[in-house]
Amino acid sequence: MLNWEQVFASRSTRMRASEIRELLKLLDRPDIISFAGGIPDPALFPREAFEAAMADIFAGSDAQASLQYSVSEGYLPLREWLAGEMEKIGIACTVDNVFITSGSQQALDYLGKLMLSPGDTALVGWPTYLGALQAFNAYEPHYDQLIPAGNRTPESYREGATAKGGAVKFAYLSADFANPTGETIGREGREQVLALAEELDIAVIEDAAYQALRYDGEPVPPILALEIAAKGSIEQARTIYCGSFSKTLAPGLRVGFVVAATPVIAKLVLMKQAADLHSPSLNQMAIEHVATRHFEAQVDTIRNAYRSRRDAMLGALARHMPPGATWGTPQGGMFVWVTLPEGIDGAALLVRSIETERVAFVPGQAFFADRSGANTIRLSFSCADEAVIGEGIARLGRLVANALPLAA
Amino acid sequence: MLNWEQVFASRSTRMRASEIRELLKLLDRPDIISFAGGIPDPALFPREAFEAAMADIFAGSDAQASLQYSVSEGYLPLREWLAGEMEKIGIACTVDNVFITSGSQQALDYLGKLMLSPGDTALVGWPTYLGALQAFNAYEPHYDQLIPAGNRTPESYREGATAKGGAVKFAYLSADFANPTGETIGREGREQVLALAEELDIAVIEDAAYQALRYDGEPVPPILALEIAAKGSIEQARTIYCGSFSKTLAPGLRVGFVVAATPVIAKLVLMKQAADLHSPSLNQMAIEHVATRHFEAQVDTIRNAYRSRRDAMLGALARHMPPGATWGTPQGGMFVWVTLPEGIDGAALLVRSIETERVAFVPGQAFFADRSGANTIRLSFSCADEAVIGEGIARLGRLVANALPLAA
Repeated sequence: MLNWEQVFASRSTRMRASEIRELLKLLDRPDIISFAGGIPDPALFPREAFEAAMADIFAGSDAQASLQYSVSEGYLPLREWLAGEMEKIGIACTVDNVFITSGSQQALDYLGKLMLSPGDTALVGWPTYLGALQAFNAYEPHYDQLIPAGNRTPESYREGATAKGGAVKFAYLSADFANPTGETIGREGREQVLALAEELDIAVIEDAAYQALRYDGEPVPPILALEIAAKGSIEQARTIYCGSFSKTLAPGLRVGFVVAATPVIAKLVLMKQAADLHSPSLNQMAIEHVATRHFEAQVDTIRNAYRSRRDAMLGALARHMPPGATWGTPQGGMFVWVTLPEGIDGAALLVRSIETERVAFVPGQAFFADRSGANTIRLSFSCADEAVIGEGIARLGRLVANALPLAA
Repeated sequence: MLNWEQVFASRSTRMRASEIRELLKLLDRPDIISFAGGIPDPALFPREAFEAAMADIFAGSDAQASLQYSVSEGYLPLREWLAGEMEKIGIACTVDNVFITSGSQQALDYLGKLMLSPGDTALVGWPTYLGALQAFNAYEPHYDQLIPAGNRTPESYREGATAKGGAVKFAYLSADFANPTGETIGREGREQVLALAEELDIAVIEDAAYQALRYDGEPVPPILALEIAAKGSIEQARTIYCGSFSKTLAPGLRVGFVVAATPVIAKLVLMKQAADLHSPSLNQMAIEHVATRHFEAQVDTIRNAYRSRRDAMLGALARHMPPGATWGTPQGGMFVWVTLPEGIDGAALLVRSIETERVAFVPGQAFFADRSGANTIRLSFSCADEAVIGEGIARLGRLVANALPLAA
């Protein structure tokens, strides 16, 4: 029998099971109130719109094309629609700047593959999106902390990367209602990231997965929009914008996109040709069909639903959390990030929570590339109704209050 | 402006445009008889079956699930159906040995990613499937020739790989009606590959994309079936079987699969989780819906259509090709591989063919990792009717006959 380890590449040692996903398998029980998932509420999917899209596609002249191979860059009418949407948020571009991926997760994988040689450094938040770390890990990078609490000079990043045998290649961040923190980076913060990237002469990966889900407050221009405004053209921009239909229309079709300067798009197209040829033709057509007819109304529906749930969660946290716990106030997205009183371990709390209170959430540590953040947890409000949220947070508050002596 | 080359990884230098795909862009003209594409005839797609599948899914209790995130290993009922199909061809396995990919191209990408460190060696045919070379190239391997004309000892493969700074990791081959040659490897040849893999203690990647498309002759057991028969269990097997619905049901849904020992499947699942989360939920459900109801009838339909076209092409070649040209007699698949009289360059012939005869095909050189095979061309019979095939081959025969003085 073959000893598989011997034929596996070194990168495979960094392919490990996501703690969160392993955890979620245990939580799929009806008696548990779950704030753990980071998924959209399926009751809000535009099911009739997709049903109509499929019926139209199969009845129309595109039926054969929907089932046939297609081009690696993606379905042209969808790319055209996206270029128009980008224009609305300050990202002037053409279809040649738009590339369709199988979800924005694929964009992160491809961008890691495109830029990271083993030993290179990626700048990420502490914490950051776990899926980004997983995607990048396959290419064996080191991580350094983007926008740290203390002051960091560009030189210190460069020296750190050199000491580890590589170079800083990009900064990755989600600027709007990030997973897991729910935080939004203001205009000044975005400009600081751009300035740092300019100093280091690296790319910026802007993960805009949640950008459309703003519930209040003023929209901040995307990092790519700020850069285009400063430089005059997307072709001059170092920011690579990754978007998704997973949070707005439906994740199960796996359609996302990248908007960037054409040298990046050209490489991504070649990479996709070699890696999976193209995203499913039918899915791109269906997304285009639904997006062109229903996108704004659908986003309004989702925003209204999630806004109420966020409000319910913030209200319940204020009522039930003991002193010492703090949390953010997200202006959008799906998550509230809670910092527990010092000394309470999120993972230990989860075990007790499942046993005694039947409430699930995600311990925050997995989101930290340096494995700090033990006293943080991520709560998602996207999939529970207001009454359930109130009950779940009441139980969680009781649990944290009871855990406080442990922490002292 | 960022100098992108400076942030691109070294692997990106091997991401180049496929000559074939670049070429095909020029050939999409109605006045050209094309034997160039390697794609299924869209007129044969089971369009009504997919239309019914979509209607059923959206009207049923799985509608929300079809639009939601799902597990990385793939849709369980589809994996169950596949395990049953595998049993029929001698591959006894459970659902735990079956992993769903976005087309079998993705399986090749993932297997390269799983096994190839830069400098490692992959054994491939001279020629071999161009898409496999493209998928593997991203992981910076060297290639050595599998089953060469002369004798090769296992030691010579090992020494060759060591000299290049890596190890031999796997042998890749398509044993049935391969792209581009149309050749089938007999049982003895398959056993030789297994014996070599055993000697070298490497994996075997069996690309079975065309396996269902046999038009005559006796089926040869898949390499994985031979290995299971010899060793008693798929868990003892080093062969990784890659299948696809692209040639049988429809490529546009991008559904393929891998069947292998569980240590391989476990790594592939982790890899997919990090790379694109999962293949589209809806597509897997639709494929399962159509496959469970129509697979055999659909494969019969395709076989009958393609058999006639193959026969038309073989007959026309016999009538019209000048002495000195030789070609294979494929028992299935989509391709006839022609060796031109010595000295006639396939690429030069294509340029002339487009200009004077309006017939397209693919020059064979791109399929050779060592860039030999200049006097070969690949003809596909999958997308033209018999009369058009006769006319196209007549023109091609005239062209080759006229090129002969050039070759002399």
